[in-house]
Amino acid sequence: MRPSGRNPDQLRDIRMTRHYTKHAEGAVLVEFGDTKVICTASVENKVPPFLKGQGQGWITAEYGMLPRSTGDRMGREASRGKQGGRTIEIQRLIGRSLRAAVDLTALGEHSVVIDCDVIQADGGTRTAAITGGCVALVDALNSLVAQGRLKQSPLKQMIGAISVGVHNGTPVLDLDYAEDSTAETDMNVIMTDKGGFIELQGTAEGEPFEQSELDAMLGLARKGIEELFEAQKSALKD
Amino acid sequence: MRPSGRNPDQLRDIRMTRHYTKHAEGAVLVEFGDTKVICTASVENKVPPFLKGQGQGWITAEYGMLPRSTGDRMGREASRGKQGGRTIEIQRLIGRSLRAAVDLTALGEHSVVIDCDVIQADGGTRTAAITGGCVALVDALNSLVAQGRLKQSPLKQMIGAISVGVHNGTPVLDLDYAEDSTAETDMNVIMTDKGGFIELQGTAEGEPFEQSELDAMLGLARKGIEELFEAQKSALKD
Amino acid sequence: MRPSGRNPDQLRDIRMTRHYTKHAEGAVLVEFGDTKVICTASVENKVPPFLKGQGQGWITAEYGMLPRSTGDRMGREASRGKQGGRTIEIQRLIGRSLRAAVDLTALGEHSVVIDCDVIQADGGTRTAAITGGCVALVDALNSLVAQGRLKQSPLKQMIGAISVGVHNGTPVLDLDYAEDSTAETDMNVIMTDKGGFIELQGTAEGEPFEQSELDAMLGLARKGIEELFEAQKSALKD
Amino acid sequence: MRPSGRNPDQLRDIRMTRHYTKHAEGAVLVEFGDTKVICTASVENKVPPFLKGQGQGWITAEYGMLPRSTGDRMGREASRGKQGGRTIEIQRLIGRSLRAAVDLTALGEHSVVIDCDVIQADGGTRTAAITGGCVALVDALNSLVAQGRLKQSPLKQMIGAISVGVHNGTPVLDLDYAEDSTAETDMNVIMTDKGGFIELQGTAEGEPFEQSELDAMLGLARKGIEELFEAQKSALKD
Amino acid sequence: MRPSGRNPDQLRDIRMTRHYTKHAEGAVLVEFGDTKVICTASVENKVPPFLKGQGQGWITAEYGMLPRSTGDRMGREASRGKQGGRTIEIQRLIGRSLRAAVDLTALGEHSVVIDCDVIQADGGTRTAAITGGCVALVDALNSLVAQGRLKQSPLKQMIGAISVGVHNGTPVLDLDYAEDSTAETDMNVIMTDKGGFIELQGTAEGEPFEQSELDAMLGLARKGIEELFEAQKSALKD
Amino acid sequence: MRPSGRNPDQLRDIRMTRHYTKHAEGAVLVEFGDTKVICTASVENKVPPFLKGQGQGWITAEYGMLPRSTGDRMGREASRGKQGGRTIEIQRLIGRSLRAAVDLTALGEHSVVIDCDVIQADGGTRTAAITGGCVALVDALNSLVAQGRLKQSPLKQMIGAISVGVHNGTPVLDLDYAEDSTAETDMNVIMTDKGGFIELQGTAEGEPFEQSELDAMLGLARKGIEELFEAQKSALKD
Repeated sequence: MRPSGRNPDQLRDIRMTRHYTKHAEGAVLVEFGDTKVICTASVENKVPPFLKGQGQGWITAEYGMLPRSTGDRMGREASRGKQGGRTIEIQRLIGRSLRAAVDLTALGEHSVVIDCDVIQADGGTRTAAITGGCVALVDALNSLVAQGRLKQSPLKQMIGAISVGVHNGTPVLDLDYAEDSTAETDMNVIMTDKGGFIELQGTAEGEPFEQSELDAMLGLARKGIEELFEAQKSALKD
Repeated sequence: MRPSGRNPDQLRDIRMTRHYTKHAEGAVLVEFGDTKVICTASVENKVPPFLKGQGQGWITAEYGMLPRSTGDRMGREASRGKQGGRTIEIQRLIGRSLRAAVDLTALGEHSVVIDCDVIQADGGTRTAAITGGCVALVDALNSLVAQGRLKQSPLKQMIGAISVGVHNGTPVLDLDYAEDSTAETDMNVIMTDKGGFIELQGTAEGEPFEQSELDAMLGLARKGIEELFEAQKSALKD
Repeated sequence: MRPSGRNPDQLRDIRMTRHYTKHAEGAVLVEFGDTKVICTASVENKVPPFLKGQGQGWITAEYGMLPRSTGDRMGREASRGKQGGRTIEIQRLIGRSLRAAVDLTALGEHSVVIDCDVIQADGGTRTAAITGGCVALVDALNSLVAQGRLKQSPLKQMIGAISVGVHNGTPVLDLDYAEDSTAETDMNVIMTDKGGFIELQGTAEGEPFEQSELDAMLGLARKGIEELFEAQKSALKD
Repeated sequence: MRPSGRNPDQLRDIRMTRHYTKHAEGAVLVEFGDTKVICTASVENKVPPFLKGQGQGWITAEYGMLPRSTGDRMGREASRGKQGGRTIEIQRLIGRSLRAAVDLTALGEHSVVIDCDVIQADGGTRTAAITGGCVALVDALNSLVAQGRLKQSPLKQMIGAISVGVHNGTPVLDLDYAEDSTAETDMNVIMTDKGGFIELQGTAEGEPFEQSELDAMLGLARKGIEELFEAQKSALKD
Repeated sequence: MRPSGRNPDQLRDIRMTRHYTKHAEGAVLVEFGDTKVICTASVENKVPPFLKGQGQGWITAEYGMLPRSTGDRMGREASRGKQGGRTIEIQRLIGRSLRAAVDLTALGEHSVVIDCDVIQADGGTRTAAITGGCVALVDALNSLVAQGRLKQSPLKQMIGAISVGVHNGTPVLDLDYAEDSTAETDMNVIMTDKGGFIELQGTAEGEPFEQSELDAMLGLARKGIEELFEAQKSALKD
Repeated sequence: MRPSGRNPDQLRDIRMTRHYTKHAEGAVLVEFGDTKVICTASVENKVPPFLKGQGQGWITAEYGMLPRSTGDRMGREASRGKQGGRTIEIQRLIGRSLRAAVDLTALGEHSVVIDCDVIQADGGTRTAAITGGCVALVDALNSLVAQGRLKQSPLKQMIGAISVGVHNGTPVLDLDYAEDSTAETDMNVIMTDKGGFIELQGTAEGEPFEQSELDAMLGLARKGIEELFEAQKSALKD
């Protein structure tokens, strides 16, 4: 029995609200149940120094949590003067995952920065950020076409991400905070809408996990991500 | 003629949405037109080192802007490793202003941290933050009473803040970004609901301003802040 | 009765010693009673990145206190690795105020950096810094003319600054530390020698202040700043 | 054909030299071919603040590369003033993995810090660090028994780690730098000597990877890690 | 011929002005010709963590230069966020040297912090700082006696410091900037008033120096430092 | 009697192993008894900004200690976010000393960075680093000739460094940790193979030292450094 009463293979309510703020080329509020993340995609007319003059673009991501997005207030990273290890790990994961969505050569010498700011946290913020960030990215790429800066969108494929885990001995999909904080195993799965894996990160929090549990979790993840691709499509139609 | 078509003494639409996020003791989304700030008030069971053992509490504030809350993306302060001078100036102003709302001795050895995070900026973020932060603070103080940690709320008075300025030679109320970026003079006025001044900060951006302009601006501010007190009251009734 | 025995509208002894150190283009020791600040103005043959190629110059300021300029030793900002919030607030104020003295376009692509280092503090360091810094600035601008780098000084007007406040219920001029640390209200007023306001920063430390108190403080400030302009003129004649 | 001429399922030469330096309780030079990492395990008589008084111990890790352990010199993290994102990611992974080796309650209020410093890099530094670090950890735990501070070693199980990947379309074991820098997929697998997974981190560098490739990589990893457990055992016998 | 016209064994004019500022327990303006350093000695009622409970005191030093104490303006260390390597080297030297003046056990659990701030630099700032700092230290130690916190001053001996060098092939005493910047060898000598060496730091800037040059420089230093002890005595008599 | 049983004028066993790691142009493991330092010399095709376009090269050094190179684990400087004062002092000394080995004009616009990383510390790490770093530097300079980037090596002279001190009243050569931590005086002497001094740094840790002790220490140092030059020559022959 899950704390939320969901079935083991059931996602939380998924909502993606485009144009949530007005300045960014892409701006999506993504909600996985009570987890709420603002994902903006900002186009910049330049590339990082290591790519200068190579005729290709870049996608990168930054992640942050509002100090009171969580049950207890966390210190503000800007005032402590550095980003924590968890933040850095997550933003690197988001950046790697979303780069897989884009043909960087077709993007030309533009960058897109995906900012993922958690305004309310209830587990799964990094998977929500990747899934919602991909929608913001699509809008930002389309804005380059609309402005005549690119002939067509360099989007190669959609990217979706979900967490799975083993909780009380049962493999479950899309863990909320109550599950995440007590799960034996926690795995984040990032896939393309063509069915390939982009990234797998599984961690045994307590006991090691077995091949059979891995297989069960991957099966749940595949099912959940397919539903996320439907939700992305539906949001992009509006 | 103002860019927005407003009269010189006209505020933008003011909205304050309480309980905007679920974890904080006070959580208000405040909107002054297109300026949107999430203000959370977090109660902590301790005071800063310089107040230990003195039998009084503390109110402090932190301020941040999401990187793409603005027209061009700003660098994220957490990843640059320090808060900018403007940020520090603003959060000190918010903290000083909201401390005036509370009887710190009656608060006992508790702290309330007001986090003001701008999710969309269109001028006047600091005045919105103070005005909305005061409502979040009221909710946080009431939570201390509801939990039996205080007998009654240590709230002394409400605090409201508004910007006024001289734009194209005309004194105007509640400048939006289009006005703010070209105004000759910009002044932030913070008052109590009993009519006294808490803080005045006026800056001549181009030409110096005269006593008569100061008087006109203060008149506008007084009118605007009265409307803000009405909006706070109405929000707190819901 | 003021702790120093001064009348409410009486400045402390004001002294400005030019050429206090030998390397800087302008170098003034300014004393407001026991408050002593070394103000140097350094000409640099470049402008900040955001002004490159725009055919105008820049004035900026930095502020610091020697660790034992105060009653208790303060930690050295350089060894703590960052400037405190108060320092940043003050140096931004000095910079804004002194930029108003100069026609930046006539300055051409030069910068002048005003360094204000407090060697002894007794209240009013920021107003002393602005008033003395303006004299150092004049010397630096004249050095550009003397060296043939400018045809004439781009000085538009002199800038003076003074603090006023309400102490024991009485509006007073030029607060020393004994008054400043117990004043109900503290306001810094920065004006041009043509009588306009450049900046007003008033803060109620305890009780809010009323319009009548504001008017009384502004009257005192106007009188005091006129005396400061006389002192600047006299120093520049030597 | 692999650049090194190895078979797809062939490890590089594995060497683990205990007592490599004299001060640490555990000190192992681990070599996976040309990749060389000094792993020291230091016992400390305290736990981090978040664990104080909870009757359990802690295992943590730090990772660094000598600036010229690599083909091009990298900037020294200590002089740049912060650890890079890759460093932080890796040291968190090492710490999580090695905590799984130990019964933290049986460890009592002691910490063991595993320092992994790469003196020569040729791919697979993090897996070498975990595998060699586990041997250093065993020595450090035994030193606690030898000193009479613990009755018996709190070691639960050995941990081994290896990288696998898809290179030129072929799944391969233990990638060296030549392979790692051009692989389509790179996965780090961390397992216990009882056959369970502790951590899985797979990343598609170019094309997504399929379930069949994942299965093949996991098979290679399982074979390689078994050989690593033999190498650990053999080193610990000496 | 020296640029200043001095004889090879001639000091610059040495001046030490006590009570230069009013807050510190010791406050000396020391001048070696045009080199001017404010040295304050601040008594603190505590010791650094590594000395807690050991029944002894501590002497430490910090060093800084006002940004425009030099011919070209240097960046302010506080705003760059760290002290430069030269600063750190110098303040460690001052601290080590002045600790030799005091019986730390007799000092009890007090610290004295010597702040040396250069307001005008013309070579030899570190030797001026040590020589003047020692006088400030004496005053601070005496203040502990005057306040009844110590029965007698824990001063063991006076410390003096001077630079010597080889300039244009000639050994010279007390180099000013014109000499220092072109000297072949530069050596700082710190001695006690009983004739022993506390610290020697000699550096060949261009050609190596020979034993005979070393001997000549040490002879000059000894002569110069004796004059400095006279100057210290005379200052302390006033 | 020395703790190690050595004669007062006896060095520890000196070993220099070239090509210790494979990537750097020069890579030497230097051992002075149990003190072990990896010195790599990295050629870079550029010079620091302050030397751009001046037709000369640069030699610089960085120094670090592995956290557990010492008896107690030291915090890792990279994770604390800054290099300690001792580290900075030492790396500046190494850089100054090794610059004296090279004709910087003949080096052309190349830099050589000497990284000295202590893997095991037992006193004398800075003198080992200079002595071994000089051998790595020779290899790096020769690599420039071998690659045809320079016609001949810009090496002017070899540099050697040794510590001497007064321990239990006796002047001794090459102090190990047991001596260093209890010596009355500690002096580092850096010389050229032509017999001149490059740098002298003597510090009285407890009692001041006298001229006669200085002379005795310099005699020991001269003898020891001659043996180091033999060891360097022998290493370079292999």
